[in-house]
Amino acid sequence: MDSIVVVGSVALDSVKTLCGESQEALGGSAVYFSLAARHFARVTVVGVIGKDFPKEHRRMLAEKGIDLSGLKELPGKTFRWVGKFGRDLSDAKTLATHLNVFAKFKPKLTPAQKRSRVVFLANIDPDLQASVLDQMQNPDLVACDTMNYWIMSKPDALRRLLARVHIFFVNDAEAKLLSRQSTALHAARVISQWGPQVVVVKKGEHGALMKVGERSYAFPAYPVESVKDPTGAGDTFAGGFMGYLTSTRDYDDIGNLKRAMLYGTTLASFNVEDFSTRRLENLQRTALQARFDESVDSLHVPHGPFSTRGPLLREARR
Amino acid sequence: MDSIVVVGSVALDSVKTLCGESQEALGGSAVYFSLAARHFARVTVVGVIGKDFPKEHRRMLAEKGIDLSGLKELPGKTFRWVGKFGRDLSDAKTLATHLNVFAKFKPKLTPAQKRSRVVFLANIDPDLQASVLDQMQNPDLVACDTMNYWIMSKPDALRRLLARVHIFFVNDAEAKLLSRQSTALHAARVISQWGPQVVVVKKGEHGALMKVGERSYAFPAYPVESVKDPTGAGDTFAGGFMGYLTSTRDYDDIGNLKRAMLYGTTLASFNVEDFSTRRLENLQRTALQARFDESVDSLHVPHGPFSTRGPLLREARR
Repeated sequence: MDSIVVVGSVALDSVKTLCGESQEALGGSAVYFSLAARHFARVTVVGVIGKDFPKEHRRMLAEKGIDLSGLKELPGKTFRWVGKFGRDLSDAKTLATHLNVFAKFKPKLTPAQKRSRVVFLANIDPDLQASVLDQMQNPDLVACDTMNYWIMSKPDALRRLLARVHIFFVNDAEAKLLSRQSTALHAARVISQWGPQVVVVKKGEHGALMKVGERSYAFPAYPVESVKDPTGAGDTFAGGFMGYLTSTRDYDDIGNLKRAMLYGTTLASFNVEDFSTRRLENLQRTALQARFDESVDSLHVPHGPFSTRGPLLREARR
Repeated sequence: MDSIVVVGSVALDSVKTLCGESQEALGGSAVYFSLAARHFARVTVVGVIGKDFPKEHRRMLAEKGIDLSGLKELPGKTFRWVGKFGRDLSDAKTLATHLNVFAKFKPKLTPAQKRSRVVFLANIDPDLQASVLDQMQNPDLVACDTMNYWIMSKPDALRRLLARVHIFFVNDAEAKLLSRQSTALHAARVISQWGPQVVVVKKGEHGALMKVGERSYAFPAYPVESVKDPTGAGDTFAGGFMGYLTSTRDYDDIGNLKRAMLYGTTLASFNVEDFSTRRLENLQRTALQARFDESVDSLHVPHGPFSTRGPLLREARR
């Protein structure tokens, strides 16, 4: 099985939404990413935890086939995030961030990790992201994410990083902030000129837009009846996307890239159905595939009366 | 050619957006609807104008093949709307509404109009919408739209109307307001229980969601680089949808309904590219068809490695 190295946070999240709350539950970008990508590829997590990180989380992740050899335990407490979502599910309010051991995070790859063909640099300091990339031995596929904090505080480091990645994942508001453009499409165009061949703008409940060369592809989110907790949806999306794409071994094929988008939105749609990683932990490949197939079918618009490539209606009737 | 009767407003709009402004330009729900639907069906406008309605607008609409025999001129001034859009293009701020002759609007259909097989009741007082429906002779397809003003002020009349329509178009925020639900999908489910077989939730730049029976179909908006003026996008969408669906004569076929959605989003994407009805007036069928074809192609997700209906990856590799 092909492998992906993911560098990012492993956290204990406390989240309140209109549907309830979770206390010190498993979270973090590298965790959500791994739980999504594991369906398609061998995932190695490079991250840091404190002495208080519950053993059962480690066990669960290992049982799901996720390689934790790069998960370092340091003296101190695990990174914690406290947040809240109101009616607008795309707008997380951060109530508290306790970096704890994450403040001392200096990712150092093992020889095996350095040889990985694919690496995902989740949302961390762009200088740290670059230091990981410096350690990699000429990988085939490099992708990254970021957030408004780094866009504001380290724009130059981020720009230097973007020149070195193939795929950039970014949410809608952050893409506009970074590019100073007012539409997602304009933003993606500007950012793609800085380096990334593929720019994926994540729009939460509204799906995602992918820019590849001169073309762009918009996909809706899979419609879910109720969203319990959107935490981690973006990282889950990236995990589904990168996991699937890695498994194809052909990263330029537009069919592969479109299926990657759809595996991303499908996995994200499961993730939001429950708090923390609960739904992702229990997700069976058959349920994932059924929802993916349903999306493919829903989006398929068959030929029909006066439809594609036939004679044009008005002209034909004259 | 099949025909549609549309009952709604004919207006002179003054609109300011971040890209510029228009003064007393052609607008109104029945106008946007007609300019979109004309590509597929014969459209008859039932509406009212004042003595000041510019002759060139009448001439342009007639030249586009739109039947204005139901457009009544009354003493007084034409309906005027003054509005403004900020960064959030889904949020029109109404600065002024001058109903003028529209306050006296009492639609009275001619015998030919009463026999139309298809009717679209654009956003007006639900009691007026019902009075039009009362005059129709057993039409095959009835669709309507509404707005927050009627949802708040005449909820019972609106509910009675919904029990009599096949297709209900409603925007995202209004669907949630009407149904007291927090997601578009939940809202569509609740509303569909009140009568409409098809509920279409319009989400502006984020596309639209269609609920048909137990299934729902989300489509993205066609990605446009810059939105000059979103005025009328919802009515343009409904015009493209209803025009195409009318032309197929099979209103239950899911392929027809999906293509209707895509003609709706395609026509709306043209409309927002310029102020007022400018882009719709000049739109050639070939350009419309090319963008429609591009959307069909973008949304088509081909089979591929570990993709639909094949053996499941992990299972297969064990």
